[in-house]
This record gives sequence, C-alpha cells and structure tokens, in this order.
Amino acid sequence: MRNEAIEGGAAGSALKGRVDAAVLDQLFYKARTHNAFLDRHVPDALLKEAVDITLQGPTSANQLPLRVVFVRSPEAKARLKDALAPGNVDKTMAAPVTAILAYDLKFYEHLPRLFPHADAKSWFAGNEAFAKASAHTNGTLQAAYFILALRSLGLDAGPMGGFDSAKVDAEFFPDGQFKSNILVNIGYGDDEKLFPRSPRFQPEEIVTFA
Amino acid sequence: MRNEAIEGGAAGSALKGRVDAAVLDQLFYKARTHNAFLDRHVPDALLKEAVDITLQGPTSANQLPLRVVFVRSPEAKARLKDALAPGNVDKTMAAPVTAILAYDLKFYEHLPRLFPHADAKSWFAGNEAFAKASAHTNGTLQAAYFILALRSLGLDAGPMGGFDSAKVDAEFFPDGQFKSNILVNIGYGDDEKLFPRSPRFQPEEIVTFA
Repeated sequence: MRNEAIEGGAAGSALKGRVDAAVLDQLFYKARTHNAFLDRHVPDALLKEAVDITLQGPTSANQLPLRVVFVRSPEAKARLKDALAPGNVDKTMAAPVTAILAYDLKFYEHLPRLFPHADAKSWFAGNEAFAKASAHTNGTLQAAYFILALRSLGLDAGPMGGFDSAKVDAEFFPDGQFKSNILVNIGYGDDEKLFPRSPRFQPEEIVTFA
Repeated sequence: MRNEAIEGGAAGSALKGRVDAAVLDQLFYKARTHNAFLDRHVPDALLKEAVDITLQGPTSANQLPLRVVFVRSPEAKARLKDALAPGNVDKTMAAPVTAILAYDLKFYEHLPRLFPHADAKSWFAGNEAFAKASAHTNGTLQAAYFILALRSLGLDAGPMGGFDSAKVDAEFFPDGQFKSNILVNIGYGDDEKLFPRSPRFQPEEIVTFA
C-alpha cells in the first residue's frame, strides 16, 4: 500500500492510497504543541482557509456547531487575559493570534439548510441539555479538525484547556448563545523553545480486537 | 506558500509549507462519511497504525484517554447490535470493522509516565467529575484524529453517535472504567452508495476577528 497513488474522481473501484510519510510527520509525528512563535505575520486569509478545511470534517447530522473568534488586537488580547490560567498568560499575550473555539447552543436553527434531507432541527429544539451535549461533542471534534487544518497549512498550534470558560463567555459572548471550549494559540512555532516531546502509548496498550 | 517544500529537522528557521491539494482532498474536501463498504479486507496492522497516528495528536496534559475496541467477529458484532439506533444496524453489521471509541475514566493513573514533568495525576485523582469531563473532551479530540488517521491511510470512516452508550458499556466495559463515546465503521467505502454531500458554512459565517 505504501505510496500508492491517490485516485480521485472515479467511482466505486478507485481505491485511495496512504499519504506520504512527510504528511504524517507534518500533521502528527513531528508536529508539536508550540508555546512560542516566530515574528512572522499570519494572514487573515490563511486563518479563514483553516476554518474552511475544518468545516469539511464530519459532525453528527452535519451540525457544524463550531464558532471561532480570532483574537489578534492588543485590546482583544487584554480582554482575554484575565480568563487565562497563570501559566497560559505570557504565551497567549505573545502569540500572533489566539483562536477562541466556541460552540453555538442554537446550532440546530441551521439544520434545515445544513441537513436538508431530514427534520434534524426537531431532534434538538426544545431539548437544551441534549443540544448542548451534542454541540460540545461535535464542536470538540471540529476543534481537532482545526488543529490539523492549521498544521496542513504549515501553521503551528498551541491548544489550551487552561482558562475560565465563564469569564471568556461573559467577555466575548455576553448573550449566552455561544460557549467557549478550547483556546488555540496560532503562528509559526519557534522550534528552539519547544519542550521535549512527551511519551505516547504503544497502540497495543489501548487497543483490543473483538 | 503553495507547494512550498516541507522542511523537517533543522531548528528555528525551518518553515513548513502547506500540504498538497490532493492531501486536503483525501482528508477533508473529497472525504465522505461512508455507509457501505467494498468487500476488501482491512488488516489489523493497518488499524493499529491508525491508532499509532492518532496517539500523536495533542491532548491536555498528554492524557491520551482514548481506548479502542475493534469489533470484527460476527459474535462481537451481535453484541453491539442491540445498542444501535435502528438506522445504524444494517450498515454496522455489514461493515468490515466497527471501532468502539471509548475513554478511560482512570486515565490519570498513567500520567506519571505520559506527563513526567509535573504531578498531573494529582489534578484529576479524587475529582471524578473533572476527570470524566476532561476524558470526554480529550477522548473526543482523539476520535477526530482517528477519523483523519484512517483517511490518511486510504481507509474510509463512518462515524456514528446514534447508539445507546450505556448498553455498549454494559456489554463491552462491565467494570465501569471505560465509557463508549463514538462508533466508527471502517473499510474501503463504496462510492456508488454515497448520499449527496451536505452543504457547509462559508468561513465568514462562523468567524469573527477581534
């Protein structure tokens, strides 16, 4: 299978191959969570392209609950500062851009357009607890797609869970419709400031066959 | 930037480029959620490699809560059947393999090894609600990495949320330590049996700059 050509377009019998090892390195094996970034501009268009890639990934009933605020201006960074865990303050203030990845608690309002072949809106409307759980799960899947989309464009990511979500929501989403989930510092990472890579499980340790 | 060479290894000034458009197609733009698969064997080694790729993705404090059961035998498929939403039964019974993606509620027991530079175990041990929420969020990030890892190896995925998690847990994880999260049918998709692709948002609809 290795290095088999990717065959697109033709139906049925067109079998896809594996991507090159260099791609797996860029997206997974050599990619790192970055805490420091080079002084290199990250264009808005590239950030929007990362979101466009992210939006192609699968979510349950195509609900696409992810909403993104790209925090770049010093004024907006200052509004974020008080919500950050102490260890996340300096690196976030210094990052070229910080994305607030949130999810829309009213995502189901868009389902007549996004999932036109069923009345998926009715599965969620009026069941706020179910809608919130679904938005959280699917918005988290989309957060992972986003991290890999950034890496696919040559950008580096520093995802963070260490922040006060209620404070971020009060500052950026005061009407209560959106819930912040994960923050991601974005830029071109400074490899010289990386920590050593943490160890991983071997697949055999977490897999069973039934 | 387009098609800039990927430069690995050298520190600091080595700037990564974007991956080829064919890779973005295979992972995102032309990838589809498959409901029917070709009669082609999926080797265990390829499934384990997908898990190995998945394990490289970032999780909070490297907690790696994902645990995977690959359900392949008719006997194990039968144990899954009763937990599936009616619309998911036939396609799951027919899929070459179905992965149960679960998370380990005691993931923190491994943190002295996986995150050796801090006492991260103490952040979670004795705080079961926090540990469970963290395992769910990070296990869901890993579910997305897994879907993209399968696609990177030329496999197709059919992720599903429509199942009774408590029934799956009672059948496959009776001791209560693992919680099932997402099921994924796996194989080589039959393009002729795809539904039309559902529409996506434009990035501008879900993004703001601050």
